[in-house]
Amino acid sequence: MKTRAAVAWKAGQPLTIETVDLAGPKAGEVLVEIKATGICHTDYYTLSGADPEGIFPSILGHEGAGVVVDVGPGVKSLRKGDHVIPLYTPECRECKFCLSQKTNLCQAIRSTQGRGLMPDATSRFSLNGQDLFHYMGTSTFSNYIVVPEIALAKIREDAPFDKVCYIGCGVTTGIGAVLFTANVEAGANVVVFGLGGIGLNVIQGAKMVGAGKIIGVDLNPEREKMAREFGMTHFINPNDVENVVDAIVQLTDGGADYSFECIGNTKVMRDALECTHKGWGRSIIIGVAEAGAEISTRPFQLVTGRKWEGSAFGGARGRTDVPKIVDWYMEGKINIDSLITHKLKLDDINKGFELMKAGESIRSVVEF
Amino acid sequence: MKTRAAVAWKAGQPLTIETVDLAGPKAGEVLVEIKATGICHTDYYTLSGADPEGIFPSILGHEGAGVVVDVGPGVKSLRKGDHVIPLYTPECRECKFCLSQKTNLCQAIRSTQGRGLMPDATSRFSLNGQDLFHYMGTSTFSNYIVVPEIALAKIREDAPFDKVCYIGCGVTTGIGAVLFTANVEAGANVVVFGLGGIGLNVIQGAKMVGAGKIIGVDLNPEREKMAREFGMTHFINPNDVENVVDAIVQLTDGGADYSFECIGNTKVMRDALECTHKGWGRSIIIGVAEAGAEISTRPFQLVTGRKWEGSAFGGARGRTDVPKIVDWYMEGKINIDSLITHKLKLDDINKGFELMKAGESIRSVVEF
Repeated sequence: MKTRAAVAWKAGQPLTIETVDLAGPKAGEVLVEIKATGICHTDYYTLSGADPEGIFPSILGHEGAGVVVDVGPGVKSLRKGDHVIPLYTPECRECKFCLSQKTNLCQAIRSTQGRGLMPDATSRFSLNGQDLFHYMGTSTFSNYIVVPEIALAKIREDAPFDKVCYIGCGVTTGIGAVLFTANVEAGANVVVFGLGGIGLNVIQGAKMVGAGKIIGVDLNPEREKMAREFGMTHFINPNDVENVVDAIVQLTDGGADYSFECIGNTKVMRDALECTHKGWGRSIIIGVAEAGAEISTRPFQLVTGRKWEGSAFGGARGRTDVPKIVDWYMEGKINIDSLITHKLKLDDINKGFELMKAGESIRSVVEF
Repeated sequence: MKTRAAVAWKAGQPLTIETVDLAGPKAGEVLVEIKATGICHTDYYTLSGADPEGIFPSILGHEGAGVVVDVGPGVKSLRKGDHVIPLYTPECRECKFCLSQKTNLCQAIRSTQGRGLMPDATSRFSLNGQDLFHYMGTSTFSNYIVVPEIALAKIREDAPFDKVCYIGCGVTTGIGAVLFTANVEAGANVVVFGLGGIGLNVIQGAKMVGAGKIIGVDLNPEREKMAREFGMTHFINPNDVENVVDAIVQLTDGGADYSFECIGNTKVMRDALECTHKGWGRSIIIGVAEAGAEISTRPFQLVTGRKWEGSAFGGARGRTDVPKIVDWYMEGKINIDSLITHKLKLDDINKGFELMKAGESIRSVVEF
């Protein structure tokens, strides 16, 4: 079949809208009509050429929502008409990682996904006979996609696609880091470095579980207002204090119980660790640092009880947890609407990247 | 009263045996006759001058066992004749840290202890009218000491002082890191970097909880034999493999579940983190690095599920856990006897440091 899609031909170049060929689903695969997709920093990171694992030509996008159109042989958990969110972190429930019950990083299709291919090591996308690569196993910048059954979360049918698509990455990454990775308890003091799309979701996750002080840190004073609406109780602009670590330690009587780095800056990651409380502080890295960058600290920080950790896709097991987060949105427990600052048509997708670069959007969503 | 003690007058100089003055216990304090004391690397570290917090003149030693001789006003939990192990990490059960139930790092007397003083900010030791500083709140290189009640673990009376003194530091630090800090579960694969006194105790802790593979890493091939006796199942000499991280990943089908750094080398700390399993590996730093040294890694190691942590005094709450470890020794669950390779008289205490430097001893114990 044919589908419209935004194609990334080369690093550093704008996407072009093409009508590409899409092969049907093979065994264990599902054909999905994408109804809406967010544009995430990770798409930009890959498109910019900074991602050493970026492959071209490819169809980017990993934050979508849509409807099942067809299923391949052997697919049992989904059928035509089901509403779904594609998962760049699948959940096979059979691999060593899934069975460990200690991580969400299912490795069932990791190697082919990393090479831009489906599990049988081929692509379903082509144009004029040339294969186009998949991206993060999702490629939601295409109106129709083929994905493995294990990489689809089935969600309720009354959830609006143009909102819950954001649960495919940003919302889950932020809220999940609080609920699933850190397991923040009521009353705990939380610090969030970087008040963009991820940071705001960390904040509303912290509010949801009844955190005590929720301290936001950002160089941009314009971030304060929305962050307060999402639950931030204290704002620190590093430009306004002599030392951001000291300021946090003072504000929290010894240090934060939990900190979250949502920027991808290795210097900030160090501050995020060192501002946590002696004895039990936990610092969770969410941001993606530039290739080759390293974090460092004195080991004394760890020997005196701080823990340095990370979170990918919010520690969420996609098929199990994503439907719950959709429920929370539908029940009004979390706010997504305010975060979606721009709606675009596929033809204008490059504008979404420009808004992001200019810092003007929290999230732009493309509707098909 | 008078007591014999080994005095450290200056960094880098041998200890001298002196008859010093000891003031009696004040409120909340206890006079203890030390029967035996181990000589630990930390004593050597301070004596060498490398410890930036080292204070002189002082009476070193922090790994002792003895008998209560007298108690000051208000002491309720101990009386004359009780057998005790002094604790350089006290347990007041009242401070924010104790009450958190998340850490063993009681801070009740931290600031005075760090300045070589008793909680009232004075010293009990003097010689010819000159104050001598306490060390780690214990100073077990003195035959008699005064310590706060909260820094004494009461132990059973049939336990031999010349063995259980080692529980005052090394045994607890190693076994506790496995049981209290990491909470290693049966079947887990464990890697131990450095097979000295701490590493061997990590190994026997791992064996005690039913760990799967227990892999020891050391440059000294002579360490292999004793480590196997303590429960090590596999030995890796970094000189014999191309890459120690790869060797461990291969041996454990993806990485260790837990690793323990027992050396204090920041490069080894990085290997210890990176050899753990994606998704859930936890690396615990026990070794004390040289002042100013830093650890580093790519944040990707943490984002993909590894955790970097530390352990001090094995995560043990001294008054609660040390008596249990004494029980385990008396019940034959752990082996201390083989680790005590040398017994010395106080007059020969400097020989203990020489044996340590030469790598000839696991532990030397001084008996009074």
